[in-house]
Amino acid sequence: MTEKLAHEKVLRDPIHQFIHIQDQLILDLINTSEFQRLRRVEQLGVTAFVFHGANHDRFGHSVGAYELARRITDYFDQYYRSQTADDGLWNPEEQLVTVVAALLHDVGHGAFSHTFEHLFNTNHEAMTQAIITGDTEINQVLQQQGPDFPNKVAAVIAKTYPNPQVVQLISSQLDVDRMDYLLRDAYYTGAAYGEFDIDRIMRTMKPGKNGITFDISGMHAVEDYIVSRYQMYLQVYFHPVSRGMEVILEHLLGRVKELLTLGHQSSDLVIPLLAPVFEVDHELTVQEYLRLDDNLFLAAINSWQDYPDPILADLSSRFINRKPFKSIQINEQSEPFIAELEDIVKDAGFDPAYYTAQNDAYDLPYDDYRPTDKKPRTQIDFVLNDGSHRELSAVSALVAAIKGRASLDQRFFFPKEMLNNGPDDLFSQVHQNFRSLIKNDTFIPGDH
Amino acid sequence: MTEKLAHEKVLRDPIHQFIHIQDQLILDLINTSEFQRLRRVEQLGVTAFVFHGANHDRFGHSVGAYELARRITDYFDQYYRSQTADDGLWNPEEQLVTVVAALLHDVGHGAFSHTFEHLFNTNHEAMTQAIITGDTEINQVLQQQGPDFPNKVAAVIAKTYPNPQVVQLISSQLDVDRMDYLLRDAYYTGAAYGEFDIDRIMRTMKPGKNGITFDISGMHAVEDYIVSRYQMYLQVYFHPVSRGMEVILEHLLGRVKELLTLGHQSSDLVIPLLAPVFEVDHELTVQEYLRLDDNLFLAAINSWQDYPDPILADLSSRFINRKPFKSIQINEQSEPFIAELEDIVKDAGFDPAYYTAQNDAYDLPYDDYRPTDKKPRTQIDFVLNDGSHRELSAVSALVAAIKGRASLDQRFFFPKEMLNNGPDDLFSQVHQNFRSLIKNDTFIPGDH
Amino acid sequence: MTEKLAHEKVLRDPIHQFIHIQDQLILDLINTSEFQRLRRVEQLGVTAFVFHGANHDRFGHSVGAYELARRITDYFDQYYRSQTADDGLWNPEEQLVTVVAALLHDVGHGAFSHTFEHLFNTNHEAMTQAIITGDTEINQVLQQQGPDFPNKVAAVIAKTYPNPQVVQLISSQLDVDRMDYLLRDAYYTGAAYGEFDIDRIMRTMKPGKNGITFDISGMHAVEDYIVSRYQMYLQVYFHPVSRGMEVILEHLLGRVKELLTLGHQSSDLVIPLLAPVFEVDHELTVQEYLRLDDNLFLAAINSWQDYPDPILADLSSRFINRKPFKSIQINEQSEPFIAELEDIVKDAGFDPAYYTAQNDAYDLPYDDYRPTDKKPRTQIDFVLNDGSHRELSAVSALVAAIKGRASLDQRFFFPKEMLNNGPDDLFSQVHQNFRSLIKNDTFIPGDH
Amino acid sequence: MTEKLAHEKVLRDPIHQFIHIQDQLILDLINTSEFQRLRRVEQLGVTAFVFHGANHDRFGHSVGAYELARRITDYFDQYYRSQTADDGLWNPEEQLVTVVAALLHDVGHGAFSHTFEHLFNTNHEAMTQAIITGDTEINQVLQQQGPDFPNKVAAVIAKTYPNPQVVQLISSQLDVDRMDYLLRDAYYTGAAYGEFDIDRIMRTMKPGKNGITFDISGMHAVEDYIVSRYQMYLQVYFHPVSRGMEVILEHLLGRVKELLTLGHQSSDLVIPLLAPVFEVDHELTVQEYLRLDDNLFLAAINSWQDYPDPILADLSSRFINRKPFKSIQINEQSEPFIAELEDIVKDAGFDPAYYTAQNDAYDLPYDDYRPTDKKPRTQIDFVLNDGSHRELSAVSALVAAIKGRASLDQRFFFPKEMLNNGPDDLFSQVHQNFRSLIKNDTFIPGDH
Repeated sequence: MTEKLAHEKVLRDPIHQFIHIQDQLILDLINTSEFQRLRRVEQLGVTAFVFHGANHDRFGHSVGAYELARRITDYFDQYYRSQTADDGLWNPEEQLVTVVAALLHDVGHGAFSHTFEHLFNTNHEAMTQAIITGDTEINQVLQQQGPDFPNKVAAVIAKTYPNPQVVQLISSQLDVDRMDYLLRDAYYTGAAYGEFDIDRIMRTMKPGKNGITFDISGMHAVEDYIVSRYQMYLQVYFHPVSRGMEVILEHLLGRVKELLTLGHQSSDLVIPLLAPVFEVDHELTVQEYLRLDDNLFLAAINSWQDYPDPILADLSSRFINRKPFKSIQINEQSEPFIAELEDIVKDAGFDPAYYTAQNDAYDLPYDDYRPTDKKPRTQIDFVLNDGSHRELSAVSALVAAIKGRASLDQRFFFPKEMLNNGPDDLFSQVHQNFRSLIKNDTFIPGDH
Repeated sequence: MTEKLAHEKVLRDPIHQFIHIQDQLILDLINTSEFQRLRRVEQLGVTAFVFHGANHDRFGHSVGAYELARRITDYFDQYYRSQTADDGLWNPEEQLVTVVAALLHDVGHGAFSHTFEHLFNTNHEAMTQAIITGDTEINQVLQQQGPDFPNKVAAVIAKTYPNPQVVQLISSQLDVDRMDYLLRDAYYTGAAYGEFDIDRIMRTMKPGKNGITFDISGMHAVEDYIVSRYQMYLQVYFHPVSRGMEVILEHLLGRVKELLTLGHQSSDLVIPLLAPVFEVDHELTVQEYLRLDDNLFLAAINSWQDYPDPILADLSSRFINRKPFKSIQINEQSEPFIAELEDIVKDAGFDPAYYTAQNDAYDLPYDDYRPTDKKPRTQIDFVLNDGSHRELSAVSALVAAIKGRASLDQRFFFPKEMLNNGPDDLFSQVHQNFRSLIKNDTFIPGDH
Repeated sequence: MTEKLAHEKVLRDPIHQFIHIQDQLILDLINTSEFQRLRRVEQLGVTAFVFHGANHDRFGHSVGAYELARRITDYFDQYYRSQTADDGLWNPEEQLVTVVAALLHDVGHGAFSHTFEHLFNTNHEAMTQAIITGDTEINQVLQQQGPDFPNKVAAVIAKTYPNPQVVQLISSQLDVDRMDYLLRDAYYTGAAYGEFDIDRIMRTMKPGKNGITFDISGMHAVEDYIVSRYQMYLQVYFHPVSRGMEVILEHLLGRVKELLTLGHQSSDLVIPLLAPVFEVDHELTVQEYLRLDDNLFLAAINSWQDYPDPILADLSSRFINRKPFKSIQINEQSEPFIAELEDIVKDAGFDPAYYTAQNDAYDLPYDDYRPTDKKPRTQIDFVLNDGSHRELSAVSALVAAIKGRASLDQRFFFPKEMLNNGPDDLFSQVHQNFRSLIKNDTFIPGDH
Repeated sequence: MTEKLAHEKVLRDPIHQFIHIQDQLILDLINTSEFQRLRRVEQLGVTAFVFHGANHDRFGHSVGAYELARRITDYFDQYYRSQTADDGLWNPEEQLVTVVAALLHDVGHGAFSHTFEHLFNTNHEAMTQAIITGDTEINQVLQQQGPDFPNKVAAVIAKTYPNPQVVQLISSQLDVDRMDYLLRDAYYTGAAYGEFDIDRIMRTMKPGKNGITFDISGMHAVEDYIVSRYQMYLQVYFHPVSRGMEVILEHLLGRVKELLTLGHQSSDLVIPLLAPVFEVDHELTVQEYLRLDDNLFLAAINSWQDYPDPILADLSSRFINRKPFKSIQINEQSEPFIAELEDIVKDAGFDPAYYTAQNDAYDLPYDDYRPTDKKPRTQIDFVLNDGSHRELSAVSALVAAIKGRASLDQRFFFPKEMLNNGPDDLFSQVHQNFRSLIKNDTFIPGDH
């Protein structure tokens, strides 16, 4: 079906040692301009401002997810190859669509995706599908496998593909995407708690009629994976200092939008490649989107330090020179008092619209299948010796403790200057007022 | 002398686990805009096109070199603290200048330094000293240690500082710079052969009257370091594919210079921050230089894909989309025949000035002290039990094998298209001629 | 006070890289015959029958615990050195007693301690104290620090030493013993889930008036340690197959005792060094105990394969040739039916006293301080920015899930032959009866 | 052919993560008493007296070598499966004999092999073949593959098997034995320089008509392996302190032989299992040999501390309590003066026959094929792109430096007491004479 390379090519990878490329199709996909663009999009964005080692990009993660998919489907092929039409085992013809979907699952990600999507109303998953099915080099390569192949790949990513095994390998609570990014992020940040025993997990995976199950002998490896994921969210992804950079980024890009609305000239603010992003009421075309990368935004922010709008110039300088906003923890009870905090910040001379923010970091580390949910999750199921099934939280006290329970960190951000207070500080009373509301980095409403 | 932090700050680092910051001075230096710029300058430049994991930046390397200097000088302070003026032991007052020099030794590095310096006639070492002694935030911070402190730090980097122990820790054949970058590059590329036993090496270092010596018990760890370094050069730093990207980069930047000479408008080609780089007969000021980073160049190259000069647009596209030039090994005997190769490339429609290159990768892995050399090297010396000294190559057969012997890889680069040859290829004879001169990736001159 | 070595000695250690020996006292202790004996006592006993890599001995663990104590107390000395009598900080004079106690905490461990103590009514903690305070080389070395020094060390191990910081470093829910053995056991078994970030934990430890607390910034590292410990117990220490070897060991040693009671000659059964162990109503002297090691027992078991008692010979052969008993999970409800299982085993020709066993694996992974407990635990406390304290389970949902909740695995062991059933098996009905009571390795009582 | 297990079994291994057992035959071989005996034979013997972590046994190494053979032959099967009779590619029918030979290659090793073979005139390679072809459980299991299968396995180990690919995988300068033991010894000793990139090496292996070759892309990984091996010999295997224990062991076992010759009773000296070893003119049977293990010898040495011969008791005590002989380097020039050293030792009251020794540590790290040698080596050959071959030292300057050049460390051993010299030392002049001949741990002949 697919043309095998005469001899496989290998990419040296610090996480999986080698990425093995055995199909001409995979090599051709990697060589497209759309896939190469992933080299210019960092995996963790602002996180590198806190974990300085974390400069890795989405190219590495994408080939890593591909490699895991390749290894798992090779393993399925060796041990669980389907013999009859409905034995629920692995159909080797599904391998290619699986590894291609793993390779391409993030191809629609853009620079600072999280912030970008929020501000510019885009969606990286929709973009991934548009790239796969639209007028792109990737689509041309995929077409060589048959006119319907791009749609099949897109269906896997959209989770509408009929074979649940394939869908769950790419997108579930224990998929090649999550396994790769957790290990990779742990490696690059240096955060030891992100490690888990991926070899063991892969060896206990089993294809079944309803998707992927796990042999009970792999229970503790899976448990460890869930716990590692939980800890990476709390320790790395939720880090308040990187979020203190993220809100600056969001505000400065918002400021550019605002300035254009106020009549500033686009050509004074951005180079042509970036112009479509900020155009009012313009929906980015796939081609426009694919020219974007981190460098364009970072070059622009560097330049904006000289722009004659004090807010844009100041926020850009804070971003380039890593001067994060500080933050305090808030909760539902704090809501009514946030306005008060914003007022104090305003009294100190900062426009609260650009110099304060509320930012919620949220994750649901694991949940079982809840049919009444809007997006019910595929639970992780183990097979016992007698063939019966047990859901993960039924066999793991640790997972039971965090199942269905969201990790949430709500914060209020503000300029670091609010915490300064020299003896001849003009705003000393303001600063004292502000500081009196904080204890242990948490907001403590005063008496009212 | 220097103000200690009430409690040390730590940066998580994947190589050294934690970078320990114990002095206010170090924290202030890290927070300067000049030092933060190092986050936007990759350590290995084009190497990441081959080793996709190697996205690390000079910020990580700089704090890593600092951390090694801190550990070594702490160790010296504990075990080899000087008691009398001329006992040749470690003077604790030298610690601060040592760790500061380690932190700042690369602060003058710019985007794609190698290529950049070649094309634009700059020098990162001179720039480092200019940043330390000039009108910068770094200089202001250093001044707080006394008016002469910046000069002392600059002298260490210039190797004119009177204490040879300090100079050799920062700059010798076994210094904190090399130790950090070898381990860091090995970690990020995933190249296992770059590892060596840094703990052992550090534990066998001894300060002495002529600089740093090593206890003989550390011989094999040092030997392993030299061998690792040798292998990293041959396997990673000399990689022909990344050099195939580097020559494209060099040619496309050269093309921009040429276009400006030909009358193209600077404002059409580059944004203001980049303009000074390409200005004819303009020497970059420190301030201009410090605004530069990788992102500015990469954003420009992305844009140049649309520029109405076919050579610049094509080379930019090759760079952005990772289409490296291919290469063959050449040697002194090949020299007379290079013109012939260039002619064939020209016959195939490519301007040889922009589509071919000769590129030499060179390294001298280790040498002993040769007083008649222009830049004699500080040899690595071991102390035996009776106090006598032995130079490294006298006790290591492996090092003796490579001592004074340069690693050299000379190559001729050309477009990959020269190797294609479809049946209806207009240039098929040209391509056949070209290919007939290559065997095992090496140039074999034909009969003449 | 203590004589420092002119230059430290280092032992290469795979867990901590190097063990640094800086005091003559420590070197002298390591060189005593009592300490060298630890080389001949395996750390995990029968576990190596399942995790074949786990051949490490108590010598490595002991020097590892010492090294951790040395690093922590060095760190305390640098950052938390006491200035006034009751400031609750670290008194550097406590360092020596702390590192010595860490080094010697396991010196009373004998061969297959768990089994041995159960059968022969000894106690390794009492033996450790007897070795420290009795007529031994270790005691002689310790006396050189003053006549009361051995008692001080023994008091630390007995947890009666007045300084709670010292006691907790050696013996608490997060002490140098546990930290070393978890990392070491994980390394040697290859069990990835045993790893945690020991550097981070050590850096967040703080001495205080009531003992050791932790900075809140180390919370996730401590949480990860508790989770790792929990997983090591369930996955490694509770492994049913190694327990299937342990019950054989226990039964065969019990059989030797029984044979001696029945009049067999000690000299036919054991060599002189082992004779005191089996002497009836004899309490082992410290000197007799210190001659024992793993080799004596394993050599004896090897010999017993030839002994003319079929039960002893058979059990010895099963042990030497690794033929573990099989097992099934039982619980409180199974109790009344165990006799039934034993009867079936008896029907198959095996003496249930020697061929069956109930064995409970139990661990309490973490608990907070409960003053009404017989042995209340020292809880793990964190210090917040404002100086207030929070107990671990109050800040960690994961630890809260396992706090005060015992891990328990109760099993019934029996010969593997009970599961065989060839067509011409004399006992086929017996075997079928037996197997009908088992499902998923768990005992399912039949209808009665 | 061979019965595959319904589902593979895995052993957790710290070096290769998992050992995958997929054939009933392999499982049955591992379960034989002869193979289980390898759990009781340490891999490195006395080395653990210096590198305390190195307690690993030959069981782990044997299953590790098996696993490497399994992976390589699986890889050959996937990429280089023979299509025609003489295409020089891999014949999948060779897999079983290859992995079995890898598993069993060390099954004849006994306790402290090196010393043992020297003293008792045995040979572990001959014993391995005797176990495979003799009356053993292993032979019975192998017979199930056909009556000739044991001979085939023995032929592989004897290097007489017709297929050179199979022979070289098991026994050559780059075989599964060496690859496993280097990595394993490095892991357990903690010696970082023993590591190399085994995945890369395995991926570049190619079966050919004359055996195994390597793709040129693997050159640096192979070079690194040779260098690692070279360093492990010099740093670990040649360590003078463990050799200082080895000579004690050799002398004390020799003393037992001598005592028996002098009329001491065997039953007073050894237990029955050990008796055949010391029987004069008795050649050990396979069955006698297979009962031996480390524990028997170590238990005996422990007991001999009480034996009423002062030399045996003293040497045994030195061994048990780790009191190694000291040593100095000697060379050919020293030979004539050794007698003088021995005389001084005798003057100090030590019988030179038991208290001194000359011991040579020797290794030839790599050599190319030399047809005139008695045992010519199979050189390591690389295949270039055009199919031509290059021998390793022709492409590696490092290997060229050590090719054909033996590592040699010749030493003279003596009691540590020879270096002591208290003021009231009876032998002070003797000791001074002795010490005057030593400089930098090397023998310096005096004036004569």
